[in-house]
Amino acid sequence: MGAPVAIVMGSQSDWPTMKRAAEVLDKLGVAHDSRIVSAHRTPDRLHQFGHGAADEGFKVIIAGAGGAAHLPGMVASLTHLPVLGVPVQSRALSGQDSLLSIVQMPAGIPVGTLAIGEAGATNAGILAASILALTDPALAERLKAFRAAQTEAVAERPVDQ
Amino acid sequence: MGAPVAIVMGSQSDWPTMKRAAEVLDKLGVAHDSRIVSAHRTPDRLHQFGHGAADEGFKVIIAGAGGAAHLPGMVASLTHLPVLGVPVQSRALSGQDSLLSIVQMPAGIPVGTLAIGEAGATNAGILAASILALTDPALAERLKAFRAAQTEAVAERPVDQ
Amino acid sequence: MGAPVAIVMGSQSDWPTMKRAAEVLDKLGVAHDSRIVSAHRTPDRLHQFGHGAADEGFKVIIAGAGGAAHLPGMVASLTHLPVLGVPVQSRALSGQDSLLSIVQMPAGIPVGTLAIGEAGATNAGILAASILALTDPALAERLKAFRAAQTEAVAERPVDQ
Amino acid sequence: MGAPVAIVMGSQSDWPTMKRAAEVLDKLGVAHDSRIVSAHRTPDRLHQFGHGAADEGFKVIIAGAGGAAHLPGMVASLTHLPVLGVPVQSRALSGQDSLLSIVQMPAGIPVGTLAIGEAGATNAGILAASILALTDPALAERLKAFRAAQTEAVAERPVDQ
Amino acid sequence: MGAPVAIVMGSQSDWPTMKRAAEVLDKLGVAHDSRIVSAHRTPDRLHQFGHGAADEGFKVIIAGAGGAAHLPGMVASLTHLPVLGVPVQSRALSGQDSLLSIVQMPAGIPVGTLAIGEAGATNAGILAASILALTDPALAERLKAFRAAQTEAVAERPVDQ
Amino acid sequence: MGAPVAIVMGSQSDWPTMKRAAEVLDKLGVAHDSRIVSAHRTPDRLHQFGHGAADEGFKVIIAGAGGAAHLPGMVASLTHLPVLGVPVQSRALSGQDSLLSIVQMPAGIPVGTLAIGEAGATNAGILAASILALTDPALAERLKAFRAAQTEAVAERPVDQ
Amino acid sequence: MGAPVAIVMGSQSDWPTMKRAAEVLDKLGVAHDSRIVSAHRTPDRLHQFGHGAADEGFKVIIAGAGGAAHLPGMVASLTHLPVLGVPVQSRALSGQDSLLSIVQMPAGIPVGTLAIGEAGATNAGILAASILALTDPALAERLKAFRAAQTEAVAERPVDQ
Amino acid sequence: MGAPVAIVMGSQSDWPTMKRAAEVLDKLGVAHDSRIVSAHRTPDRLHQFGHGAADEGFKVIIAGAGGAAHLPGMVASLTHLPVLGVPVQSRALSGQDSLLSIVQMPAGIPVGTLAIGEAGATNAGILAASILALTDPALAERLKAFRAAQTEAVAERPVDQ
Repeated sequence: MGAPVAIVMGSQSDWPTMKRAAEVLDKLGVAHDSRIVSAHRTPDRLHQFGHGAADEGFKVIIAGAGGAAHLPGMVASLTHLPVLGVPVQSRALSGQDSLLSIVQMPAGIPVGTLAIGEAGATNAGILAASILALTDPALAERLKAFRAAQTEAVAERPVDQ
Repeated sequence: MGAPVAIVMGSQSDWPTMKRAAEVLDKLGVAHDSRIVSAHRTPDRLHQFGHGAADEGFKVIIAGAGGAAHLPGMVASLTHLPVLGVPVQSRALSGQDSLLSIVQMPAGIPVGTLAIGEAGATNAGILAASILALTDPALAERLKAFRAAQTEAVAERPVDQ
Repeated sequence: MGAPVAIVMGSQSDWPTMKRAAEVLDKLGVAHDSRIVSAHRTPDRLHQFGHGAADEGFKVIIAGAGGAAHLPGMVASLTHLPVLGVPVQSRALSGQDSLLSIVQMPAGIPVGTLAIGEAGATNAGILAASILALTDPALAERLKAFRAAQTEAVAERPVDQ
Repeated sequence: MGAPVAIVMGSQSDWPTMKRAAEVLDKLGVAHDSRIVSAHRTPDRLHQFGHGAADEGFKVIIAGAGGAAHLPGMVASLTHLPVLGVPVQSRALSGQDSLLSIVQMPAGIPVGTLAIGEAGATNAGILAASILALTDPALAERLKAFRAAQTEAVAERPVDQ
Repeated sequence: MGAPVAIVMGSQSDWPTMKRAAEVLDKLGVAHDSRIVSAHRTPDRLHQFGHGAADEGFKVIIAGAGGAAHLPGMVASLTHLPVLGVPVQSRALSGQDSLLSIVQMPAGIPVGTLAIGEAGATNAGILAASILALTDPALAERLKAFRAAQTEAVAERPVDQ
Repeated sequence: MGAPVAIVMGSQSDWPTMKRAAEVLDKLGVAHDSRIVSAHRTPDRLHQFGHGAADEGFKVIIAGAGGAAHLPGMVASLTHLPVLGVPVQSRALSGQDSLLSIVQMPAGIPVGTLAIGEAGATNAGILAASILALTDPALAERLKAFRAAQTEAVAERPVDQ
Repeated sequence: MGAPVAIVMGSQSDWPTMKRAAEVLDKLGVAHDSRIVSAHRTPDRLHQFGHGAADEGFKVIIAGAGGAAHLPGMVASLTHLPVLGVPVQSRALSGQDSLLSIVQMPAGIPVGTLAIGEAGATNAGILAASILALTDPALAERLKAFRAAQTEAVAERPVDQ
Repeated sequence: MGAPVAIVMGSQSDWPTMKRAAEVLDKLGVAHDSRIVSAHRTPDRLHQFGHGAADEGFKVIIAGAGGAAHLPGMVASLTHLPVLGVPVQSRALSGQDSLLSIVQMPAGIPVGTLAIGEAGATNAGILAASILALTDPALAERLKAFRAAQTEAVAERPVDQ
């Protein structure tokens, strides 16, 4: 069976951000499949991907884009799977355009939006895992361990560096 | 032959704004066809409209939407016709989200964006007419007359009302 | 067994927004439990709710708040369940503060954030349903039907009203 | 006959941005003429340019400027030709001032506005070409080929670099 | 001789704001002349007004406009007289567009910008008077008296109303 | 007895900002204790710190965080001690998210918020000292001397460097 | 002896906001003295108030103003007492100008800033009380009771109204 | 007699910006006097400067500051001379805070505000000169020549560099 998580992005230039999602899914032992699907330059690929995502076996879709970021919302319009959106930091407006283009969806078609940039991509991976963990007890244990390790890693006091 | 200008919008609620485009095109004697095409709720209709717009005989497409406004950019991704975008004023953010979602398109797929709200819709109609007037001398004359009348209508001095 | 979806909000004044989540979950046949949990005025209730949410049988948590909106992120810090955040429209800043306070979470603790206001609350409900539908085929059918009906309801042309 | 596209800009410092319009027009085989016309430092040159643009044989005008960017709107006030505006990224406000100064035109005088910066300049060139292509079948074919090549160039998967 | 202060505005709709400048100049005994000069709809009138303002005997020009507010900067480009700009509150963006369009002028052509809306119009009148008072001792006395009365009018304590 | 001022921050990465608070408290002779307390990664540590802060002998708490900055407000919800908040400058949004997440607290739970970044951290230290100085005459004298020295240090004229 | 808390504001029009500070101080049994001190219209009154505030017996100063809100920072420059700032909601910009004018103080002169509008005024009162409670055990008890009652008042579940 | 233009700024760090005002005044042959007057660290110096500025023989005051920039407005509150404000670009918010703190003055006390940063400082110098030129024909001629040279310096066409 295919990977449960698709990571799609608008262009190669989004990969340094979006690979944070791939990395954290690797740590959590969740298979994923990363693809470039440009809403604007490959609208037919988008259309096919969105319509076929459930049949491909995907359970959760992570979509990242910058500027007038239409990919997450358009994928969400084409599938009933949960879609998580990552606003990639844009050049002129630092991702404010990306964020509003992704999060301000009209009633009826949700995109669960994460923070601008790498933190958002990491969190999209974790959120996808938490969704899959609802019916995967082993993953739930790995997720809890990941969270516990994260808590453990916080030092008691700051240090000069 | 069909109307040269398509006016598409994301929902019925955009019509009070978008009809300003229809009205000014009426004044300029340019035929137009208004339709609801929701990028998010009717993605297949969007896909068909965009791919078929040139074959339907349209020359210019005016697209209006609010919030995470994906319609103008997605139509532009599906056609090589000129697409003009109108950011509809949104409830919480007054159209700032609509504006950025429409104007901040990546290199390769342009949307000529007008002002937020009714002024933008009127101007989309005038800009569409100015494009068609490039090869329609009679329309060019009507457009010049419209512009001249607009100039004439500006009073010399303000008055209390 | 308890309801799979918790809807929590910072105060009674958030209910006119958040009940949109409850309403759409009703339409989709998903049980839910709505509570007031103020991050700021009832921090112990928050602490207990977050720590106990999984044991109460909740699968997905929808959290809405306005202004310096800490509830969604704090719940997310206390549970490994998926948390969806709804920025309630605030008085002075129209929900821009709510949105940034919810969506800009640091790497490690995700909140899947929806649009400001009622549209966001409705979408939080739909997104919660789409998560539960991953392992509930009957719900998946109801969700597809809901989405199809939504598509059907879009008129072909705008009308004056 | 003269070039059909004029590219005007407020100062030499806008050229690194605006030459993207020239470059894409070159690729599409559309002649163009680039000039500096400062709304603020050469208002008479602006006045003459705007009034004479149609008589010079221009069909479409691309105007770029930054900060309190008045050039696109002022050119539009002086001609009935279609005017496309490019907000140049400004130093302190990253082009937010340029964007609002260009796009928020009042009803009656449209400027079709593109994205902030180089992407916007490229897109102004493409949009100008799409306007001219309405009555130039050979250009329409070149534009379609350009768009098709752009689609082809999108890789299927992201790669580490 | 003519009035020393010109009050120009982009349209009749700016008058409820701009008449605050006229009113305070009346109080200070400074003659003024109010005109509508639309940068966009009457660019020739603008050109003539700007070039001729000094010859008409004006000393200071107050210019108010909203949205993509080009009037103050364009007048400043056409005259070496001091120009004061008033950002009129716009519908969608509450004057943020007006403010940036007026204040962010490039080096070389200044516009002394006042606050958004009626407070700004009043202050443009007072600032014009303070400029003229530099060489009009009687006006300087009236201005000092106006300022003193303003100070006197501030109550010691707030009262419920 | 313990230090009267606690300096808490969300992560080690906040320390370069927050140590400005420690430094100015050192100059003013006020003991302080710096700790990392992550609202999101260590919610139980937060809960214990907030509930126990008064019993530990703290009088004033300085809390700094960035992005969706929940630490200051959550500490304030758990203690009746005065809490001062420092918005740490964030990567994408330069601290605008941090500022709104900290300052826009609802009625009932105050956080006295300082400027974004290092200036705010320094000022949090000074404000904490001014609070303690209300009942510590020796500290009040040191604070006055600090303020006087600060005034003395302002040169009369700027110099090229 | 005089009241320990001064509530100063820029004009009578700030009173509907600022009286929330007075009201909550009344509830907490803390005496206060409310005055109008306009930084701009009564700069000498400001100068005298700031220099004399400590000698008048004040311990904490709450200062509220809107727009280019200079009162809190200027009072802080004139006294070493703790100053709390309340950004009053302004007409055009909803208090965003007030907030930035108050909170973004340079290193050396702190203003502890609260939320925009009435919530901020209430919280300024509570924060002032929490400062005074550090050395007033009876007030500390009243403050704890106020906080406890506030917690008690939060209903478990939202209700339709 | 003393210089007619005072250039005041909040700190030495503002000088690289503010010296643009000095430089352009030098070019125009207008004497000026530059001083550091910190509204926050030297409030008494501010008070004396503002009250005494007219008696010192100044005609126009240019005031620059950053962040919560109170200097221009406070000087304006203390003198009836025309005051021009320059928002210095701030670290976190790029001068948006400086701009709003200076321009949004309440009715009664005007500050003629220029652009953020060096362009604004240059323009403050030119605007001061244009004010003085109203009664100094030789300066008026120099100003016209400066403006003409500025116009002459604009090349006809952009060049690659």
